Amino acid sequence: MKTGVIGLGAMGAPMARNLRRAGHLACVWNRSPDKAAQLRDELDVTAATDPADLARQCKLIILSVSADADVLAVVDAILPGVQPGTIVLDTSTVSRATAQQAAARLEQSATFLDAPVSGGIEGAHKGTLVMMVGGDAEMLARIRPVLGSIAARVEHMGPVGTGQATKAINQVMAAGINQAVSEALAFAEALELPLDKIIEVLGSGAAGNWFLTHRGPTMTQGKYEPGFRVALHHKDLAICKQMAEQFDVALPVVEMTLIHYRRLMEAGFGDEDISALLREKRAMFEK
Amino acid sequence: MKTGVIGLGAMGAPMARNLRRAGHLACVWNRSPDKAAQLRDELDVTAATDPADLARQCKLIILSVSADADVLAVVDAILPGVQPGTIVLDTSTVSRATAQQAAARLEQSATFLDAPVSGGIEGAHKGTLVMMVGGDAEMLARIRPVLGSIAARVEHMGPVGTGQATKAINQVMAAGINQAVSEALAFAEALELPLDKIIEVLGSGAAGNWFLTHRGPTMTQGKYEPGFRVALHHKDLAICKQMAEQFDVALPVVEMTLIHYRRLMEAGFGDEDISALLREKRAMFEK
Repeated sequence: MKTGVIGLGAMGAPMARNLRRAGHLACVWNRSPDKAAQLRDELDVTAATDPADLARQCKLIILSVSADADVLAVVDAILPGVQPGTIVLDTSTVSRATAQQAAARLEQSATFLDAPVSGGIEGAHKGTLVMMVGGDAEMLARIRPVLGSIAARVEHMGPVGTGQATKAINQVMAAGINQAVSEALAFAEALELPLDKIIEVLGSGAAGNWFLTHRGPTMTQGKYEPGFRVALHHKDLAICKQMAEQFDVALPVVEMTLIHYRRLMEAGFGDEDISALLREKRAMFEK
Repeated sequence: MKTGVIGLGAMGAPMARNLRRAGHLACVWNRSPDKAAQLRDELDVTAATDPADLARQCKLIILSVSADADVLAVVDAILPGVQPGTIVLDTSTVSRATAQQAAARLEQSATFLDAPVSGGIEGAHKGTLVMMVGGDAEMLARIRPVLGSIAARVEHMGPVGTGQATKAINQVMAAGINQAVSEALAFAEALELPLDKIIEVLGSGAAGNWFLTHRGPTMTQGKYEPGFRVALHHKDLAICKQMAEQFDVALPVVEMTLIHYRRLMEAGFGDEDISALLREKRAMFEK
């Protein structure tokens, strides 16, 4: 299936490479044209002159952009070129409302699927992302062979917006677990306990979790290489906060973590892994 | 090794049974004598007239009581009967300071080991507890064969008090994970997502954790059978709060969870599993 990628950043570029390897990629476009020209040369594909130009050449359009406004701007920009039967799959992490708006704007021309991913840059390079998809199940079934080259797991969650909603739930849970692990490890440090043994013993019990096992050993050495950047999780949690506000609810774990992350970003640690939250918890014990 | 058990409650009684099965149990004592008489008849062992009487008959004294004051009271009560070379192993969850005080009071007469357990009532019955031990490593090595009949894993953490400190860290982490999972699942419910699928998809990723996988499926059905009781976790977190206050620190996850648990207890849910925290998170979304 002739596939185009719009947005060739840290996630979009490796996805484009994996699509090319599997023989699906026809065309790329990026807001700053140098990145598109580079991938055009590297992968021997077309670089579109604008999003509508890309839309004219592709039946599957994959988006990987940064923010809610970018998704809607790109959707508007492809509209003049969209062919009947086209599928637009958005892998960006944005709000549920943005997904629903994008689908509404495309309704007469194309099928929109919201498909945020987890697995990070490493997953994008390896083609092992987990994709949470909202939208028409039948249309998703048609493009599963293509998506198999970028994702290890593609889960259909329900109608348009449920992909983004699922990603939001994942980010809330990840924030809470980060709070749990970093608060516990900072306390263990203050109590002068053997941290390696703590990670091993607690990891095998009812408090066991992926984050403790995979990030605990580097956290206790004060190493916070991403992984998943503080600034990105902050962005995602801001979306969660906004989604919860639609129910007139402030989620305590989300609110608390947003404050901690903002403090980390202000101190220059926004590009570190989210496990750098340990810095904030440690600071409580320093006088 | 002639072993006695003091405190025959929900944890102590099944531990006594497992010790008897392995041929170690000589004597029991309990504050209310009917429980002791019952186990004496069931297990064909001696019921001591008082803690000192038990101490005269045993080289290993295992405590399983409720609160900090109980541990110190029992230690004072065994003192008149303690034989040279006796080991006192306290499986209760109390503060680090209480463990250190108990060790100091026994110093001239016996070796004290603090050995709180995780694995709950089920682990006590099956003999599969995880035991976190503080105190003399050599003395612990001597009684490992006996402890093998009640625990699947016995970890030496350091000097007296480190067993209790490790348990405290475990309870802090468990509180944070409960916050993470219940906040995320309540939000997912409000967003009308398919909860079974959420548990499956998120459980396999970077937010994956034991609690989500093992409690998630019952939580989403509104079932909160213990497991681990709210009132007990509340008691343990109160100990954590007190231990943190010695550093002039209020731990946010601990403070927040204490408030939630107190609300649950006041509403009559103290005997439910800690996953009943979902009740509090759900209530935020109800108007």
